[in-house]
Amino acid sequence: FADVSKLAVDDYVGFTFFVGCMAMMAASAFFFLSMNTFDRKWKTSVLVSGLITFIAAVHYWYMRDYWAANMESPTFFRYVDWVLTVPLMCVEFYLILKVAGAKRSLMWNMIWLSVIMLVTGYFGETLYRDQAWFWGLISGIAYFIIVAIIWVGPAKKLAVQAGGEVLKAHKTLCWFVLVGWAIYPIGYMAGTPGWYEGIFGGLPMDVIYNIGDAVNKIGFGLVIYNLAVTASAKET
Amino acid sequence: FADVSKLAVDDYVGFTFFVGCMAMMAASAFFFLSMNTFDRKWKTSVLVSGLITFIAAVHYWYMRDYWAANMESPTFFRYVDWVLTVPLMCVEFYLILKVAGAKRSLMWNMIWLSVIMLVTGYFGETLYRDQAWFWGLISGIAYFIIVAIIWVGPAKKLAVQAGGEVLKAHKTLCWFVLVGWAIYPIGYMAGTPGWYEGIFGGLPMDVIYNIGDAVNKIGFGLVIYNLAVTASAKET
Ligand SMILES: CC1=C(/C=C/C(C)=C/C=C/C(C)=C/C=O)C(C)(C)CCC1
Ligand SMILES: CC1=C(/C=C/C(C)=C/C=C/C(C)=C/C=O)C(C)(C)CCC1
Repeated sequence: FADVSKLAVDDYVGFTFFVGCMAMMAASAFFFLSMNTFDRKWKTSVLVSGLITFIAAVHYWYMRDYWAANMESPTFFRYVDWVLTVPLMCVEFYLILKVAGAKRSLMWNMIWLSVIMLVTGYFGETLYRDQAWFWGLISGIAYFIIVAIIWVGPAKKLAVQAGGEVLKAHKTLCWFVLVGWAIYPIGYMAGTPGWYEGIFGGLPMDVIYNIGDAVNKIGFGLVIYNLAVTASAKET
Repeated sequence: FADVSKLAVDDYVGFTFFVGCMAMMAASAFFFLSMNTFDRKWKTSVLVSGLITFIAAVHYWYMRDYWAANMESPTFFRYVDWVLTVPLMCVEFYLILKVAGAKRSLMWNMIWLSVIMLVTGYFGETLYRDQAWFWGLISGIAYFIIVAIIWVGPAKKLAVQAGGEVLKAHKTLCWFVLVGWAIYPIGYMAGTPGWYEGIFGGLPMDVIYNIGDAVNKIGFGLVIYNLAVTASAKET
């Protein structure tokens, strides 16, 4: 008897896990197979986009089965995934700003902040659910600092220095971090107890997280891909 | 103990699931491995053809086991598959018409229409089977608009502007959408209750859908492949 699960026809969480899993796999194939058509400078960026979706594909594979088997949020695996993919996104910012002389320290600052954001979020969702608002707040502060770094801080300055296609791509990525990433705190509020209960109460947390992941991992990667296409075309 | 199922020798649905699965895998290998022999312009199109069959291969792998285990239509996974592959086909139209200046908005219009077509079809097949005719009708209208866009609408105009091999390929793809895609509503009518019961009553829905997928995913991809071959040859 084969290893397949039945899902209820109205199981939208299961649906988004399956669609998300396959979309991540397809996106990885797309980034990996197209990376060699670009100049060295952009190859690494596209490769890292592929790594982000590939890591997600593997975790979604696990999470969709976890969901199908237990009908329960795979919070543990969700955070395993984020703790790898979010730092890689910070690496992406560094990679595209390297042309303007970005320093490694910028990358590490963003990485540490993202780790703080995720570890505190994990505490709020699991061990200390009763103080979810408190951990969410700390997490939100770290998130806010990341937003500030790329919108008005050192990352912004470097993007202006680089100009051209890099600046354009940076602007789009800024919106991803401000609007796209803001999907996650909404999911958090929908899934944890607190004074904010009821605001997003009706929505299932996992659907929100899955939509967020699709937008941010694949969309983010496509912005990088697009930058590689236009920048490579100009250089030749 | 290996994870294999036995199938009855006259299980034609199972047969088409297994053949379909392998055909999709082989087609993916073909498109992925040959993409690098083409110019940049066509590479992406062939890559996307490969993504379509790759996505299908993964889902067929699941669906053939699902069928073998439950002897029941894997409707859920069928629609997970379509909701990813049909929009990618709209992307293909956009990609080949880009040479004639196709706009992103054309692509998005087609994508939205295809999503409406599929979501309403899903409702008719699962949650609201009693009104299957109604949901099928709405789905059919969306389908009809897609057909109109590519046969006589903006997509057609762009194809004429592009001329040559692109126009030829576009014509073939138009027939795929008009005749090839029409296989699916037939499967729908064979598989749902309604006044049309009996017309296609004897045929098993999944065999019809599997034939449709083989024709449209692999055939569609081969048309793109062929365009890449002939257009690349002319340019050198
Ligand atoms: C602010 C905030 C959060 C932010 C999470 C974010 C921003 C996650 C981003 C994940 C990404 C971008 C994954 C894609 O690969 C948490 C942890 C939900 C806890 C509540 C407060
Ligand atoms: C019109 C219509 C339908 C059309 C489905 C189509 C046109 C599906 C195409 C799928 C493809 C092309 C997949 C290949 O990758 C439904 C949903 C069965 C519902 C009944 C009415």
